[in-house]
Amino acid sequence: MKIKGQAWRSVWLNIDNSVGVIDQRFLPHEFKTVCLRDLDDFERAIREMWIRGAPLIGVVAAYGMAVAVQHDSSDAALTHAEQTLLATRPTAVNLRWALSRMVSTLLPLPREQRADVAHALAAHMAEEDVAINHQLGQHGLAVIRELARQRPGQRINILTHCNAGWLATVDWGTATSPIYQAFNEGIDLHVWVDETRPRNQGASLTAWELGQHGVPHTLIVDNAGGHLMQHGLVDLCIVGTDRVTARGDVCNKIGTYLKALAAFDNQVPFYVAMPSPTLDLSVQDGVREIPIENRAGDEISHLSGWHADGYVTTVQICPSSTATSTNPGFDVTPARLITALITERGLCAAHPQAIAAMFGAPRTQTA
Amino acid sequence: MKIKGQAWRSVWLNIDNSVGVIDQRFLPHEFKTVCLRDLDDFERAIREMWIRGAPLIGVVAAYGMAVAVQHDSSDAALTHAEQTLLATRPTAVNLRWALSRMVSTLLPLPREQRADVAHALAAHMAEEDVAINHQLGQHGLAVIRELARQRPGQRINILTHCNAGWLATVDWGTATSPIYQAFNEGIDLHVWVDETRPRNQGASLTAWELGQHGVPHTLIVDNAGGHLMQHGLVDLCIVGTDRVTARGDVCNKIGTYLKALAAFDNQVPFYVAMPSPTLDLSVQDGVREIPIENRAGDEISHLSGWHADGYVTTVQICPSSTATSTNPGFDVTPARLITALITERGLCAAHPQAIAAMFGAPRTQTA
Repeated sequence: MKIKGQAWRSVWLNIDNSVGVIDQRFLPHEFKTVCLRDLDDFERAIREMWIRGAPLIGVVAAYGMAVAVQHDSSDAALTHAEQTLLATRPTAVNLRWALSRMVSTLLPLPREQRADVAHALAAHMAEEDVAINHQLGQHGLAVIRELARQRPGQRINILTHCNAGWLATVDWGTATSPIYQAFNEGIDLHVWVDETRPRNQGASLTAWELGQHGVPHTLIVDNAGGHLMQHGLVDLCIVGTDRVTARGDVCNKIGTYLKALAAFDNQVPFYVAMPSPTLDLSVQDGVREIPIENRAGDEISHLSGWHADGYVTTVQICPSSTATSTNPGFDVTPARLITALITERGLCAAHPQAIAAMFGAPRTQTA
Repeated sequence: MKIKGQAWRSVWLNIDNSVGVIDQRFLPHEFKTVCLRDLDDFERAIREMWIRGAPLIGVVAAYGMAVAVQHDSSDAALTHAEQTLLATRPTAVNLRWALSRMVSTLLPLPREQRADVAHALAAHMAEEDVAINHQLGQHGLAVIRELARQRPGQRINILTHCNAGWLATVDWGTATSPIYQAFNEGIDLHVWVDETRPRNQGASLTAWELGQHGVPHTLIVDNAGGHLMQHGLVDLCIVGTDRVTARGDVCNKIGTYLKALAAFDNQVPFYVAMPSPTLDLSVQDGVREIPIENRAGDEISHLSGWHADGYVTTVQICPSSTATSTNPGFDVTPARLITALITERGLCAAHPQAIAAMFGAPRTQTA
């Protein structure tokens, strides 16, 4: 998508086989790119969330393995790279999926072929992500078009949570792909952007990328969405996901569940943009089975932002003695609250039979 | 309640008839008190939220009228003071109630008696608030005691939103009154404190006052409560309220509705601590009838906190071009989601007949 009128992707290969990414920690205040050159760089970039978003994590991890294999193509190095990268973010199924795909492709190959194939496969996974998100967006676009047709002359208000934007993928985004495509074809729309505490990805990333592309939007606090829905100010919700279970439970950024409850209570359609690699058919009950990472408490007690004197700084918002040890990164929205999954294959009910019919037998881990 | 082991109230009369309050804008980082000496001081203190919380606003406004009448006891001055103070915070029914009570008492009196009676009535309203909150807390305490009895040896986890603590009242608080009383009698409890964006009253006030009193608590982001409830980590919710309608709809800090939905979805009891002056029998449908103040957008875009170098400063968390014009201060939780109202007269179902039976004909505005 566009930054100051120029087309960008969130990850790219440099001429020296290093990998470029946008260091998203500095957005929206500063636009910085960074070069990842060895496994440590990739491990740190994912763990410290220089890059984030399930699909982008998967592609960057694949590139990380490619760069690692380029340095050492042994089986041990492969396994070490897989374990190192896998440990960075335990919740994202794409990460596991991407790494398994790399390892299962590379291990049977002679060592001298591994580096080239690894780079080719990582590049292919990046292209696949773009194609999937574009196609997913086409199906979501149809939903928005239909709403616009039913309400001629009215602006369509879409609520989203966190950043399932192009910065979370290679391009287009997942939840934002229908939005960008609807905007690009001239549908009058406006996006309510949830701030998304504790890391404020809505304020720092979604607001930034929508603004760069010119899409009308308003930043709101996470507490406000229910009130807006009660007052008819939200026509539909579209969120992303980090993992969808076989029965359609959706794991996504903490707070998604609360918005889904409010949407359900106010008959506002609640869609989840799900590229198929995010489907984890090995899991049924998302609330009981998905491990939720508990992140550092300073994400709650401290906030970074732009100081009026022209620099990024950090402030503490609670007493120093206050416990902030409970900081779940994700929650699970039960399938019953979800209108439909928007996938690259079309809309799919958040229901075990519908998911099985569209996606067949388990394909994660073994693709 | 206690600050560093000493008993405090949130508002007090000074020997020169000026009124002392804690300037809550600087909490939790700095503890500052301030003297209010004329109507402008009171108007600013309420509008700019040096003090906040429906019950405290009512008492401080009453004192504001007393101080104004002391300067000028004419009918015109009374009306001017009422209008000036009423305009500061349109949502809080206590403000309207307190001012009407002052005016209806003072207007029939000869001018020379008005100042003394005004001060006496303001002091009485402060005492009344303390008594009401203590009594309300007794009824809430019974709920917590019963839970503790059912779960011997288990810690009781209570979730609260915003600050309905003693800083929001004259003493005890509303939602916190049962908590302080249960803690004081040795019940093993722990409080989940919602941060409460955009103004972070949970992080800055509730965490501070619970910490000062020694009550175990953990600060969480507003997004986390639903997840905690799904996992059995919340035994009950207690929140305050700015206005309760005749049918039991509850207007409270933005985001309350989302927590009530999550509590309902997980069979977690959801209690609202309601001192009777907060009841507004003139309103039925809270969602449709209660005007919700839309506050300044910089509450969303900017956050203040303590810098590691030892001062309070403000940072911006979104792009400068991002719209933040939608900042509703409150939302309305429908009665159907509420387990019971905890009032100074006892528990009351959030239901028109129960409310009418306990509180009779409209008593606000004319008491």
